[in-house]
Amino acid sequence: MTTPDLAPVRLPVLDEHARGLLFTDARTANSFTDEPISDETLASIWELAKWPPTAANTQPLRVLYVRTQAGKDRLVPLMMEGNQAKTAAAPAVAILAADVDFHQFVPQVFPIRPELKGYFDEAGVDGRETHATFNSALQAGYFLLSARAHGLAAGPMGGFDADAVSTEFFPGGRHKAILVVNLGHPGPDAYYDRLPRLAHNDVVSWV
Amino acid sequence: MTTPDLAPVRLPVLDEHARGLLFTDARTANSFTDEPISDETLASIWELAKWPPTAANTQPLRVLYVRTQAGKDRLVPLMMEGNQAKTAAAPAVAILAADVDFHQFVPQVFPIRPELKGYFDEAGVDGRETHATFNSALQAGYFLLSARAHGLAAGPMGGFDADAVSTEFFPGGRHKAILVVNLGHPGPDAYYDRLPRLAHNDVVSWV
Repeated sequence: MTTPDLAPVRLPVLDEHARGLLFTDARTANSFTDEPISDETLASIWELAKWPPTAANTQPLRVLYVRTQAGKDRLVPLMMEGNQAKTAAAPAVAILAADVDFHQFVPQVFPIRPELKGYFDEAGVDGRETHATFNSALQAGYFLLSARAHGLAAGPMGGFDADAVSTEFFPGGRHKAILVVNLGHPGPDAYYDRLPRLAHNDVVSWV
Repeated sequence: MTTPDLAPVRLPVLDEHARGLLFTDARTANSFTDEPISDETLASIWELAKWPPTAANTQPLRVLYVRTQAGKDRLVPLMMEGNQAKTAAAPAVAILAADVDFHQFVPQVFPIRPELKGYFDEAGVDGRETHATFNSALQAGYFLLSARAHGLAAGPMGGFDADAVSTEFFPGGRHKAILVVNLGHPGPDAYYDRLPRLAHNDVVSWV
């Protein structure tokens, strides 16, 4: 019996249109139209963003969608002043948070090594927070590109009172807010001038 | 003089093929063919990944591409044992690192508020490391999806001696290795069974 000499799998390459949509043409929007974003679209952003990898498949990111006026009224005062008007105007806002008790799910999401749950138990909250924050930030990158993949402009903001937002929206101390993201269709004058990117050789090196 | 009542800009939506390439079909590869990855492709991965946003446009991620045998010989022993064989076999490897002196570039990359450099000076290395690590992780998410956009399978690994890798490849203490990523075309038996993702309601909530 012989095994056929299969050609290696060649993966397709993303076309220019899609590169533009996610990376090169997409921009952080600072104003939004009042066109609502459906709950189905918001749910779908997560259903796409959930797939790329995290360490030991731990998936510590949590997403709270704020789209009611009551929710906005709780969030906006906790944003830095320069972020308040646009957060109030965005048709939907996502609060992204790191779950420091992500390890409760390890037996379910990493069944090949369920004993990792015990390792994270022993690491304590501080040890887990490092893992949770890092991997949540990685997932936040996926989330922002998924929002763009849904035809939405995203406006990520680090300028807010993280402790106050965590306490207000995630009582119990288990979730640490890491990023607030305005979502919607870009409004008038949505974009500032594009800021420069670092020179290639200031970022990339080779051995 | 009247201003025309322009319709709001509607952004296009990523098609199923591209969603599959970046999110839903793409998988972390654990073996690679020996087909080389050109330096042009590796450079292009960064040129795409550099565009999505970071806080105050600080762009703290640095990328070191390891593709010579001499470079591999320095890296592989610093990987966890379970990651050594696949790192040795990958045609190219990226060491992703956070630059804790990213603020040196603030006047260049954030000219609208150059005084932020002084704020980061005062924050000290520890304060800057939090910012650098978080935003580098966000950029690592962009980097992984950009590698996929180039038709490559990526194999991100957190299992390595981060201090030793930082010292070996980034002498001076300015760069902290955060992730090592194998890059290449998937080889035979490249994929383990896909691990489960968390249930929607364990991640997403609404107000």
